[in-house]
Amino acid sequence: MTTTTMPMLETYPAEINLDRAELAAAIDALIACAQACTACADACLSEEVVAELTTCVRTNLDCADICSTTARVLSRHTGYDANISRSVLEACATVCKSCGDECGSHAEMHEHCRLCAEACRNCERACRDLLAAIG
Amino acid sequence: MTTTTMPMLETYPAEINLDRAELAAAIDALIACAQACTACADACLSEEVVAELTTCVRTNLDCADICSTTARVLSRHTGYDANISRSVLEACATVCKSCGDECGSHAEMHEHCRLCAEACRNCERACRDLLAAIG
Amino acid sequence: MTTTTMPMLETYPAEINLDRAELAAAIDALIACAQACTACADACLSEEVVAELTTCVRTNLDCADICSTTARVLSRHTGYDANISRSVLEACATVCKSCGDECGSHAEMHEHCRLCAEACRNCERACRDLLAAIG
Amino acid sequence: MTTTTMPMLETYPAEINLDRAELAAAIDALIACAQACTACADACLSEEVVAELTTCVRTNLDCADICSTTARVLSRHTGYDANISRSVLEACATVCKSCGDECGSHAEMHEHCRLCAEACRNCERACRDLLAAIG
Repeated sequence: MTTTTMPMLETYPAEINLDRAELAAAIDALIACAQACTACADACLSEEVVAELTTCVRTNLDCADICSTTARVLSRHTGYDANISRSVLEACATVCKSCGDECGSHAEMHEHCRLCAEACRNCERACRDLLAAIG
Repeated sequence: MTTTTMPMLETYPAEINLDRAELAAAIDALIACAQACTACADACLSEEVVAELTTCVRTNLDCADICSTTARVLSRHTGYDANISRSVLEACATVCKSCGDECGSHAEMHEHCRLCAEACRNCERACRDLLAAIG
Repeated sequence: MTTTTMPMLETYPAEINLDRAELAAAIDALIACAQACTACADACLSEEVVAELTTCVRTNLDCADICSTTARVLSRHTGYDANISRSVLEACATVCKSCGDECGSHAEMHEHCRLCAEACRNCERACRDLLAAIG
Repeated sequence: MTTTTMPMLETYPAEINLDRAELAAAIDALIACAQACTACADACLSEEVVAELTTCVRTNLDCADICSTTARVLSRHTGYDANISRSVLEACATVCKSCGDECGSHAEMHEHCRLCAEACRNCERACRDLLAAIG
């Protein structure tokens, strides 16, 4: 599918302090990661070995929540406050690292964990790139 | 961007009561609509005529919240309960109709409203298609 | 704890189409239920018999998401649209009924499920009372 | 109202690395602040001087999202990861400080901003206390 993240950014009626293409890429990575983590938590619940995957479910739920919130914060530009963007991006990079590692450790056993770990790593990278741009 | 919604659905380790491609299309329409509504609410806040757009901001915020929640519910398949899916899809189609109409009424003045109205209509259609499939 | 739901409602600078005390009671029941469901999902994950509780986890997650979203919608009064309030309250009453039943079925084994079932039933009742008031 | 945050914490079937009463106080401050910010954003939208309050609306929306997410993360104890709790609490203290300052600057004009600023300061304090306890 194609989100309308970039077209929406192009119609914002005031200045944006960040490169719009980089911002759109980060928002899209965040919402893809949030969806993957929600789906992976649920797929883990349906595995017979669910008892071995409870940490994975929990980390997926945290990662989904933090990615969704970060995508919302980055989708707002009115009254921009770099401190808020920076701190939520740092929290998001942290949880994506944890979730990528946790899902990565089950990647050989569970294809949903392998795909989710990839989504987490893409998202962590996008968060760190944006943090570098914010400075 | 490409979400991993469909690949994640393909790795779900149990049965899913709905067509996976149709489900993926609905989830993707929901998360695109949630992002468009969050962005449109914020773009409205930055318009000089914000005082004329307060209903639009409010409806955008409701639509973003309901679409995000609906995307999460549809991303879960464990212990499937058709009553929950149906009722949340009905709420979502209702808010997408209201928000599409509200944004549509500003579409000639504000490009962000025009794009957001389109996202709402796509999403409303996807919700109604899925409701028909659930029966 | 005491929320500031009612004091905040009293400071709203325009008309509200519903009784403010009844509205505050519903919002508070919704946010209490959302918290209880989030906590119950996690407590289920930590039970040794987690494999028997996966439907409960899933229903808790849906209920938490829908209650949070409903609390947000009811906390907004600008540009009030009865169709949106009604449809989201109906979805919320539906998921609270399902989750109250599911948690209720484990209430004798797990105290967190017993408490969570109570929170769901309180919340379902508050949603139905408000639906009756909206008409 | 009374949340069931503390009773739910008491039923958690495994160890929790933090003092349960302090944790419950923080979660309750977070969900009260999220509600106050959602309500304040909407009350600002209904003020005639909405054009002077757009930064306040935006900061309220960010604060509501980050507080809700932080409350969820702190409501989970399975597979505890101090790095995630710490980073999300830091982001939350940051946004509560910004939002408390922003709402505080309108407190003499708008009672909803005065109440919301108080909720933000309570919540910031609870986040910082918990951060000190996590170490």
